Amino acid sequence: MAKKIVVIGSGAAGMTAASSAREANEDAEIVVFTEEEHVSYSPCAIPFVLEGKIKDFDSIIMHTPEWYRKERSIEVRTRTKVTGVDVDKKTIALADGTSAPYDSLVLATGGTVFVPPIEGADLPGVHKVRFIKDGMDIQKAMASARHVVVAGAGVIGLEVAVALRHAGLEVTVVEMFPQVIPRICDADMAKEVQSYCESLGIKFVMGAPLQAIQGEGRVQKVVAGGKEHPADLVVMATGVRANLELPNQMGLEIGGLGAVRVSPTLQPYRKGRLMRDVFLAGDLVMCESAAAPGPTMSQLGGTGVRMGRVAGINAAGGYATFPAVVSPWVSQIGDVQIAGTGLSCGLADYYGMSVVEGRSTGTTRARYYPGGKKLIVKLLADRSTHRIVGGQILAGEEATGRINWISAAILNGATVEDFVTSYENAYCPPTSMVKDVVNRAAEDLLSKF
Amino acid sequence: MAKKIVVIGSGAAGMTAASSAREANEDAEIVVFTEEEHVSYSPCAIPFVLEGKIKDFDSIIMHTPEWYRKERSIEVRTRTKVTGVDVDKKTIALADGTSAPYDSLVLATGGTVFVPPIEGADLPGVHKVRFIKDGMDIQKAMASARHVVVAGAGVIGLEVAVALRHAGLEVTVVEMFPQVIPRICDADMAKEVQSYCESLGIKFVMGAPLQAIQGEGRVQKVVAGGKEHPADLVVMATGVRANLELPNQMGLEIGGLGAVRVSPTLQPYRKGRLMRDVFLAGDLVMCESAAAPGPTMSQLGGTGVRMGRVAGINAAGGYATFPAVVSPWVSQIGDVQIAGTGLSCGLADYYGMSVVEGRSTGTTRARYYPGGKKLIVKLLADRSTHRIVGGQILAGEEATGRINWISAAILNGATVEDFVTSYENAYCPPTSMVKDVVNRAAEDLLSKF
Repeated sequence: MAKKIVVIGSGAAGMTAASSAREANEDAEIVVFTEEEHVSYSPCAIPFVLEGKIKDFDSIIMHTPEWYRKERSIEVRTRTKVTGVDVDKKTIALADGTSAPYDSLVLATGGTVFVPPIEGADLPGVHKVRFIKDGMDIQKAMASARHVVVAGAGVIGLEVAVALRHAGLEVTVVEMFPQVIPRICDADMAKEVQSYCESLGIKFVMGAPLQAIQGEGRVQKVVAGGKEHPADLVVMATGVRANLELPNQMGLEIGGLGAVRVSPTLQPYRKGRLMRDVFLAGDLVMCESAAAPGPTMSQLGGTGVRMGRVAGINAAGGYATFPAVVSPWVSQIGDVQIAGTGLSCGLADYYGMSVVEGRSTGTTRARYYPGGKKLIVKLLADRSTHRIVGGQILAGEEATGRINWISAAILNGATVEDFVTSYENAYCPPTSMVKDVVNRAAEDLLSKF
Repeated sequence: MAKKIVVIGSGAAGMTAASSAREANEDAEIVVFTEEEHVSYSPCAIPFVLEGKIKDFDSIIMHTPEWYRKERSIEVRTRTKVTGVDVDKKTIALADGTSAPYDSLVLATGGTVFVPPIEGADLPGVHKVRFIKDGMDIQKAMASARHVVVAGAGVIGLEVAVALRHAGLEVTVVEMFPQVIPRICDADMAKEVQSYCESLGIKFVMGAPLQAIQGEGRVQKVVAGGKEHPADLVVMATGVRANLELPNQMGLEIGGLGAVRVSPTLQPYRKGRLMRDVFLAGDLVMCESAAAPGPTMSQLGGTGVRMGRVAGINAAGGYATFPAVVSPWVSQIGDVQIAGTGLSCGLADYYGMSVVEGRSTGTTRARYYPGGKKLIVKLLADRSTHRIVGGQILAGEEATGRINWISAAILNGATVEDFVTSYENAYCPPTSMVKDVVNRAAEDLLSKF
């Protein structure tokens, strides 16, 4: 009899798991359950649709449920909430009271935007930014809005702030930490990003938790930092928390970071034992860091895809493992690219590591070649082992390949001496400096030891 | 008494050696001897000055001999030919009959364009492209030229061909191999580059050695592939051979590749023994490959800088070693970037290695994000060990960071399985696909095993 594979969640992790299971097993019955209407789209693209860089929301939907049915023989049950999992009977319960059996289960229920429990958080005019539906709602609300408050100055918050500012709205960003892109970005790099956003006319209220959202029937103002800020639209980009509803109900072991603890095969633990027929992927998973001595969460689209592949192969009866992660990320904030990988100073501190910083400022082309853009590279190394453990790039272009390059060095345990001695860069005047700014940052870092 | 350090050659290798020696030793007397008038410029920029992308030749000169004297206390003796080295007396002989002593000698005399011994190679109107003076001469000659033949379809030849074509000249490229960018680029990638050049109106005569250059008093035509091609300007971009005049005269051991054999400290061998006070850097050096089981030459500007650093530190009495190289390169040919690293199929064959090829075509941004450019990535892995040994990229933008990333994987001995499993890419719709084309190429490569 054909193996029954059930996937819960239709984000990057869930849909990749379903597709990878299909590649690994031609005969399996594969069904994806999702509360969403649309599947297989890129949530990371939402700010760029709002900005008008991408034509419309339809453009960012790669495939329909029909496509999965026809092309992959994968059944996708949209607008269907899974209310419970019976791990003994190996069935899932649906909101309509029916249930469905599984041989293998992939949990890819992702995360949700954390909304602080404050007055007015449920007023009309307050929107999260997470699903494509949220993006569509914000796009509609933009048309009649004048003052927007974006809560949260992470990369999504800043991308949305720039999008709304480009649309001509008055935008205020409220952030409880004293810097933008807290946690994953260092204060010096964050300052450059904030200055750029301010140059576009975006206002910042820093070090100020959101205190209240107020209005008659719909949002009219926000209280933060002890002051009132007019707002007829509020966008919550306050960070993503793992969806632990099903894992808790199933009795899965939850790690210290508020996410599900898994084995390298992405199987969870229950009552101290590895579960044989359950696999996890995406934003609700705690995994190992390749840069630090401890666990991490890697809530990135790329990680979702890579975890989905491993979970899907294993759910289909194959064998794959998910390795420790470096978690490179990049964001396009107006004309500025900000990227990072491995640890920031703040994360290093969290792990109890002492780091040394190196930095260099240059250009993306030879200095004499017209059109080159500013390029700032920062590298962090562990003080005792000299291993490179983090990198950040702020640039007008070409940040992505460089941050992947630094990620490879971290992954391979390269010391700063290794980097200076052995890491070569390709050179042509229109595409780089003869000694790339990454290499210059490594030399600066070496000089600090 | 202050240590006397003599550097012969003022290219990237020589000037970096002098600067690095100064950093390592504040008191040394450092003198650079060079036949050139200009020092510290980027020869790689010459095609882009000819193309008008860079304003003028002055722009590509970073520093003058006066700057070195004042800022670095380095004496630069321009237009001064060193005719011999007495390794026993530790002196160099100059063309004017005088001599100068050294405690440490850095040989960085580079290479010269190999001109085939054919009829008419010395006719007026025939120019090499190597030194800034060559560039200036070609720029002058362009003004009155109509038909140009570029001999050699390597990256410099193609960059010059595009520059001259953009200036409105009729350009024919003659290449003795059946493909452009032979040796370091595979035929399939080379074909894409050639097609692009042809779309600009450049003509190609392939698989045709230059047979003769003819004309009355100055060049009028070129014979290649059994046919005559009109030419009032000929540019020789026929490859670089190591300058072995001084090494031969000094009795240094020459390796099988026609370059000087050195230790990891960049010291040469003489009569079977390592020379204590001589160091080499740049295009005349044979070094180890990190991708292949054997020696290589890495005649790149970046390699010159990196070797110069090691030779300078050691000449000043310090200790540094030069590691095995991957030799990433990149070239901007009109709107197309072509880049490579490690081995091509041809080079793998030369080393007796059997390789497996993977390839993927995508875009530099998410497919739905406007303005993305074509991106083709090719990866090669050793058939027996699965180690990645080479990569090539053809792209409209963003090739450089990606080729450095692949270089890091080769350097670290990553297998294709390692790459698929552990090499993460940063993702944002305006800067990459969710799974970068490099990762897709790795998956394609894995599927071939």
